[in-house]
Amino acid sequence: MNSIDAIIGLLAKLPGIGKKSAGRLAYHILESDRSYARLLAERLESLHDSIRRCSVCGAWTENDPCPICADATRDGALLCVVERSQDVRVIEESKEFRGRFHVLGGLIAPLDGVNPDDLAIGSLVRRVRSEKISEVILALNPTLEGDTTSLYIHKALQDSPVAITRLASGLPVGGDLEYADRLTLSRSFRGRIKMEF
Amino acid sequence: MNSIDAIIGLLAKLPGIGKKSAGRLAYHILESDRSYARLLAERLESLHDSIRRCSVCGAWTENDPCPICADATRDGALLCVVERSQDVRVIEESKEFRGRFHVLGGLIAPLDGVNPDDLAIGSLVRRVRSEKISEVILALNPTLEGDTTSLYIHKALQDSPVAITRLASGLPVGGDLEYADRLTLSRSFRGRIKMEF
Repeated sequence: MNSIDAIIGLLAKLPGIGKKSAGRLAYHILESDRSYARLLAERLESLHDSIRRCSVCGAWTENDPCPICADATRDGALLCVVERSQDVRVIEESKEFRGRFHVLGGLIAPLDGVNPDDLAIGSLVRRVRSEKISEVILALNPTLEGDTTSLYIHKALQDSPVAITRLASGLPVGGDLEYADRLTLSRSFRGRIKMEF
Repeated sequence: MNSIDAIIGLLAKLPGIGKKSAGRLAYHILESDRSYARLLAERLESLHDSIRRCSVCGAWTENDPCPICADATRDGALLCVVERSQDVRVIEESKEFRGRFHVLGGLIAPLDGVNPDDLAIGSLVRRVRSEKISEVILALNPTLEGDTTSLYIHKALQDSPVAITRLASGLPVGGDLEYADRLTLSRSFRGRIKMEF
């Protein structure tokens, strides 16, 4: 196997990258300035050494605790529970939320062998007990696994005096009623909001 | 900028990879075994040192001449002209062609500043004169740039006693007449083939 085939094979292991795309990427890298390949190589080489999990929230970070957990200006009363570290990034980019985060590291999926014990649910319960948290916002995907996990966490926190909310589910902004699936439509009806004048 | 943002920025420079996909890839690499990142880093680091252009056909190769040019069992009378090195791979995978290749390194596109002199057309003419070639197959994309380049090469080779052909253009196999654009439909009519019984 030559170097190009080796790179294509490695790139094709990435999510969403098929063999054809991997080929296009490999040739693009080959035909780009070699400084690009060098820089990417260096960054990949050092990635796992420079990044670790925040010991408080579980997000990937260079410093422990992570910048969000360390930021005293954030609202410590609001805790947003997400599936993965990249969800923190997405929510931060929306600038919609100024509280703190808790990364579960996955969703309950018994068929895939993911049980509650595999997730950071125990540490979530401990945080809710020890920190001054008034509301836990479950920002999990509106899927079977997300809903199962939300219900499980809801039950695990039922003895704690916190409000537990979850993100509204409904029509995406800019979407089209005609293309909404039945479940989304049903949820957007049940969650309908009174218009204010 | 932290290490994750740096990797995302670098990956987002690849063709067809937007910022969202780059994020997904970066987190996937981070959450995969670190040996994957190490291996990919090593391969990227050495890529440009291990791969060069074949001095005969211009394709990317580890050995010069490349395995195809060096293979005495290939039909030296047939020369297939392609735009880029990865086209050689695509054609090789189809196992449809047993001749040799010539890589132009691009297509004529004056608006993008790509002129005939920027491409390996001079070396193509020299190969046609010096090697025992009976047919030059122009396997360029059926686009404005591809057609322009085909016409230019046709003219450049008009004094050479070789047949010049180009790939058939028409409906893709498995495609649908309804979704074919007018130009493709017109070409598939003009190139219609008598059915044999």
